[in-house]
Amino acid sequence: MTSTSTSPRPSATSPTVQESVAAAADAQPAVSAAPYEQRARWLESLADELDANADELVPLADAETSLGGTRLSGELARTSAQLRLFAHVVREGSFLEAIVDHRNDDATPPLPDLRRMLVPVGPVGVFAASNFPFAFSVLGGDTASALAAGNTVVVKAHEGHPELSRRVSELAQAALSSAGAPQGILGLVEGRDAGVTLVEEPRIMAVGFTGSVRGGRSLFDAASRRARPIPFYGELGSLNPVVVTPGAASARTDDVAEGLAASFTLGAGQFCTKPGVVFVPADSRLDSALAARVERRQFQLLNDRIASGFRDRLAEVTGVAAVGVVAGEPGEVGEGTAVPGPIVLSTTVDAVLEDPEVLLDEVFGPVTLLVRYDTLDRVREALRAAPGSLTTTLHAEDGEDVRGLLDEMTQLSGRVLYGGWPTGVAVSWAQQHGGPYPASTSLHTSVGTTAIRRFLRPVAYQTMPDALLPEPLQEANPLGIPRRVDGRLA
Amino acid sequence: MTSTSTSPRPSATSPTVQESVAAAADAQPAVSAAPYEQRARWLESLADELDANADELVPLADAETSLGGTRLSGELARTSAQLRLFAHVVREGSFLEAIVDHRNDDATPPLPDLRRMLVPVGPVGVFAASNFPFAFSVLGGDTASALAAGNTVVVKAHEGHPELSRRVSELAQAALSSAGAPQGILGLVEGRDAGVTLVEEPRIMAVGFTGSVRGGRSLFDAASRRARPIPFYGELGSLNPVVVTPGAASARTDDVAEGLAASFTLGAGQFCTKPGVVFVPADSRLDSALAARVERRQFQLLNDRIASGFRDRLAEVTGVAAVGVVAGEPGEVGEGTAVPGPIVLSTTVDAVLEDPEVLLDEVFGPVTLLVRYDTLDRVREALRAAPGSLTTTLHAEDGEDVRGLLDEMTQLSGRVLYGGWPTGVAVSWAQQHGGPYPASTSLHTSVGTTAIRRFLRPVAYQTMPDALLPEPLQEANPLGIPRRVDGRLA
Repeated sequence: MTSTSTSPRPSATSPTVQESVAAAADAQPAVSAAPYEQRARWLESLADELDANADELVPLADAETSLGGTRLSGELARTSAQLRLFAHVVREGSFLEAIVDHRNDDATPPLPDLRRMLVPVGPVGVFAASNFPFAFSVLGGDTASALAAGNTVVVKAHEGHPELSRRVSELAQAALSSAGAPQGILGLVEGRDAGVTLVEEPRIMAVGFTGSVRGGRSLFDAASRRARPIPFYGELGSLNPVVVTPGAASARTDDVAEGLAASFTLGAGQFCTKPGVVFVPADSRLDSALAARVERRQFQLLNDRIASGFRDRLAEVTGVAAVGVVAGEPGEVGEGTAVPGPIVLSTTVDAVLEDPEVLLDEVFGPVTLLVRYDTLDRVREALRAAPGSLTTTLHAEDGEDVRGLLDEMTQLSGRVLYGGWPTGVAVSWAQQHGGPYPASTSLHTSVGTTAIRRFLRPVAYQTMPDALLPEPLQEANPLGIPRRVDGRLA
Repeated sequence: MTSTSTSPRPSATSPTVQESVAAAADAQPAVSAAPYEQRARWLESLADELDANADELVPLADAETSLGGTRLSGELARTSAQLRLFAHVVREGSFLEAIVDHRNDDATPPLPDLRRMLVPVGPVGVFAASNFPFAFSVLGGDTASALAAGNTVVVKAHEGHPELSRRVSELAQAALSSAGAPQGILGLVEGRDAGVTLVEEPRIMAVGFTGSVRGGRSLFDAASRRARPIPFYGELGSLNPVVVTPGAASARTDDVAEGLAASFTLGAGQFCTKPGVVFVPADSRLDSALAARVERRQFQLLNDRIASGFRDRLAEVTGVAAVGVVAGEPGEVGEGTAVPGPIVLSTTVDAVLEDPEVLLDEVFGPVTLLVRYDTLDRVREALRAAPGSLTTTLHAEDGEDVRGLLDEMTQLSGRVLYGGWPTGVAVSWAQQHGGPYPASTSLHTSVGTTAIRRFLRPVAYQTMPDALLPEPLQEANPLGIPRRVDGRLA
């Protein structure tokens, strides 16, 4: 929060939410109408701009988030790669889900010529997150997928990195303008009140959000209460349970301990995919193996609010009688954003089943809870008591019967890992970053190519002359995109 | 409402909502796990059962809805065809949206093996509609698509056709049971209170609804207020504006009048796609052509509530000074469910812009409103003041510049017709039956094959051994379904 101000912009002269949304709404028809190739180039121009300014942006981000240069450089590269992947998605064209049903007089009743595709939903509001100042912020995945879908976007900056947000927004405006995009295609608003106003603005047609359950739920409620309700794509909190079978616990104790130690402390434990509870056999020595691998140090959390939330939740969890300390000193609370850690706690399946609201709930920060179990049936019972999660992870050995567990994990989460750790979230076609509530407020992903579906709505054209059809639906398929024609993929 | 009772079931012995939902939730794992081929056969067994019992069911439906044997026979055939189409969708397999991303060590960062597909969302609540006792009822499109997606279903019967609902449910139970489906896969509950309870039941994971704006909005609010909110796929009200250009009005006056007369009176004007307002050139003689084509008669509306709603809305619209009567006697209100009609009203663009809440809102029943315009720009202005609609229809002649109008119509609705009339809703791949609120509460369709997407959620499997993957994602693609592999459709 002490960085030199590269672009101070007194709020008195900043555009209001209404002004930004009006600009977005005015630009929407031109943005929708631009050729797909041009839309792809806008995305690439944003990617290029980020990469070209990495040397300035990474230190700016570090000064505001304490996440470190290495992690932030990687995150910036991920963010520009994400923009380029969405440019590819736009060119590839299957995101339009184009369907052509030719007239069929032989059907009973006869079927008219009917052609369906997805079109932009309209101006989209995007809420930046605190913990990913590039990948889930001004030019992050929500913005990239909303722009790729053909929408204008108004981003609500996160208070945790205001300077970075303003600077990225300035660079984006310049890049988009050079690339010929309409003015108003991408706006930035700031301040807590701006958030609610943005969701309530009648011309905003959908919202993407990454943040806490409490904040997200309150905005979801605002979106649902509107005279015209809109979809609110919130990614809220996640526990990310891990199960280590007896086989894996004995065959790969050190390996599992090593991986877990790295995963739950990544980004100071401030990943939405952090493994929050780890089910381990009661008789395993995973706890001591883990204790031996966590190196005590100070963690700088993202901001005061997150640090104080961490302390509160930690006190709540350690206040449960059946919770013991495996590593760290949860009593030492640190000062300001600094917290000593990491912390490993342990308890039993009985205890989590008795107090699921305290023990099976996210603690955002560098802590994980080992839950000792006697049988895998008891683990399934505990999973059934857990809230919806972004991920679940199973460490098992060949030959163990884990089908029942995997069924439970599929019910509970949007991504099921066999081995490995959930903190890495690949940006790819098959990614699913979303899960049953409260992990998400929708049946969609916020990472990966299919995230684009959130910001599109279907329109069918009936007996429309070819010349009046949008290009993706014209008979000759001038864009050469994948389509379904008379029921067959072509 | 005076039909002989084929299956009287005193409510005291009917299963409660809780019991039906519990049975559905218990059956869900077995239903999800059943092979797709088996799921397709369940749908076909339902279709066969409907067809085999048409002679009994059609009169039963007519006694409760007054919709007439011809229309109801067609609707039953449409409903069984819809079930068979969804069986085909299940076998074809692209509804699973299977995506395989192989491990890629050359990427930065390296990408793990990641495979994604859609899985059933869980027990689904379905609200039957009054106006389609087969196609939007116990075995209608919502039920067919929810079952096809692999879900169990609890239907809330519509009060307008209780006997028919019970009989169809009985036949369905028998057919499903013979076909080997798990007990509890399809339940039926009755009563107004049962509706709210069904939406609030924690184990219900999504809801499909067709009905009024008022009723639908109140259930949408209930679904959004839940501790764990669920998607509420409501199809509420629709105005379905039609625009007749000067060219079409002069070249095809009689043709347009003929088509309109048939469309707005179909099913006694109780179609959600009924053309409610028709923009006609101020100087056209469409009004007299239409007046000459509507034959005065008594209409039997579906029930007392709909009839009294029709009378109230009609009085409201005719109470506007600038509204005139082209045909019919809106002052003659009839008795009970009988209303004299049809009624054709007329007004001006100025009037609808002055009072859009009264004049640009659905009137459910045999009436339409002609809106005289001077220029097409004024029509666009009026369309911008209209609420979201299921359909918009344009009647134009070659060479007229209608692009601006079509853009406006694409904004306003989910299906845009060029020529023809919106009351026919083809059940096909490209259909879109849904539109901006209040036409729908979601970005989905309730008719056509893509309606299945509403009842599925994505799950990704990371580095999962082939033998533990669901069949659609296994390396050899044993089901032979369409998939995207490493970014390419295969």
